[in-house]
Amino acid sequence: MKVEGRNAVYELLKTDKEIDKVLVQKDLKDEASKRLVNVIRSHKIKVQAVDKYVIDKESESKRSQGFIAFTSDYKYYELEEIIAEAKDKDGFIVMLNEILDPHNLGSIIRVCECAGVDGLVIGKDRSASVNDTVMRISAGALNHVKVARVTNINSAIDKLKENGYWIYGAETGGENVYKTDLKGKICLIIGGEDSGVKRLTKEKCDGIISIPMFGKVNSLNASVACGVAVYEAVRQRLDR
Amino acid sequence: MKVEGRNAVYELLKTDKEIDKVLVQKDLKDEASKRLVNVIRSHKIKVQAVDKYVIDKESESKRSQGFIAFTSDYKYYELEEIIAEAKDKDGFIVMLNEILDPHNLGSIIRVCECAGVDGLVIGKDRSASVNDTVMRISAGALNHVKVARVTNINSAIDKLKENGYWIYGAETGGENVYKTDLKGKICLIIGGEDSGVKRLTKEKCDGIISIPMFGKVNSLNASVACGVAVYEAVRQRLDR
Repeated sequence: MKVEGRNAVYELLKTDKEIDKVLVQKDLKDEASKRLVNVIRSHKIKVQAVDKYVIDKESESKRSQGFIAFTSDYKYYELEEIIAEAKDKDGFIVMLNEILDPHNLGSIIRVCECAGVDGLVIGKDRSASVNDTVMRISAGALNHVKVARVTNINSAIDKLKENGYWIYGAETGGENVYKTDLKGKICLIIGGEDSGVKRLTKEKCDGIISIPMFGKVNSLNASVACGVAVYEAVRQRLDR
Repeated sequence: MKVEGRNAVYELLKTDKEIDKVLVQKDLKDEASKRLVNVIRSHKIKVQAVDKYVIDKESESKRSQGFIAFTSDYKYYELEEIIAEAKDKDGFIVMLNEILDPHNLGSIIRVCECAGVDGLVIGKDRSASVNDTVMRISAGALNHVKVARVTNINSAIDKLKENGYWIYGAETGGENVYKTDLKGKICLIIGGEDSGVKRLTKEKCDGIISIPMFGKVNSLNASVACGVAVYEAVRQRLDR
């Protein structure tokens, strides 16, 4: 959803609504605009400076005053809900560690839907959140996958462990994924596009699993890596 | 590579260079420009009508006269070369049936590189070809994967069969991929984003394999589906 105009964007900042980013026209020179940019930044919200024609194209009201905020209408689940609903079965949860690209997030949501994953956990910071692009790329899958957004990935791991989950990080240099037992209650952590699974998170894992690589460049797209790892778990869990 | 200006684009059409598309400024009214647009279209090359600012942004010479052609510098392999190089081993070839999105093609090239696939075959028509976007998305993998572009996918299948390959199409409604033997010389066909594997091509397959689906929407991104299927073959071929 788009919120346009200086005042509307300012009021939006006071609510607890999720703001994905704010487009701001590049050449605004007046004091009110400059002040608002600072306020937006102080909320740690992404400010994207763009040319006037971009604002004109994106604006629906045509009264944006150079400010268009993008909010997310998606209602996240709580991690506890996901755990509770998978209580009496071999729960299968996917967790993302700083996946930044909304295309990857959308594509991963499709993987989770197809594979019948019980829930997807993403972090609040340095992570793509559910926005219009993610919704579009997920091709409807978002309506059938429970996505929880947590303040702290590592605390979420502790909670999963308390509830009997085994935690596996997908990362280079680990055990061959095809030789790892991925049955039972598991949480599979997929690392970010560039950074992989972060050190602190990796230390919390019960195991690190790797997709065998036979090339020279050896870099899979994050959503493809997620698909391969998730479906290897699916294969093993079918085979009993 | 970009070729700019009316004359340069016209001359380019006479060569056998691959042209991905031509950007044409929207509001050109002169006869010479209109005539050139018709000539480009008659070569079945994609014409993309864009605003002047897009032309100005894309133009490197600043003398484009509203015409910018994008050519591919990529040198394709011949299918015969790929077959010959994999002659004495269990060759593994991936074939794409009308994958249109360059992002998917780039991502699939990464899959092929990581999985150590011997070659990737794409069709000349209704298929993304190797362009700048594909090169960028492939993240360097393109330098290590042999891509062949064939006029007719179905003739290519015949040639592969003559050389001892088993042909598997990945498509819904087929045999569970985890229950199909994917060892030996194989060619795996991945269908297009919307159309899947085409009927005539499907009839040529020795088997149709499917990734098991447990959701309601059940649609994987094409490059993810390719990753899952290719890596299941990798798993089986490692396991001997």
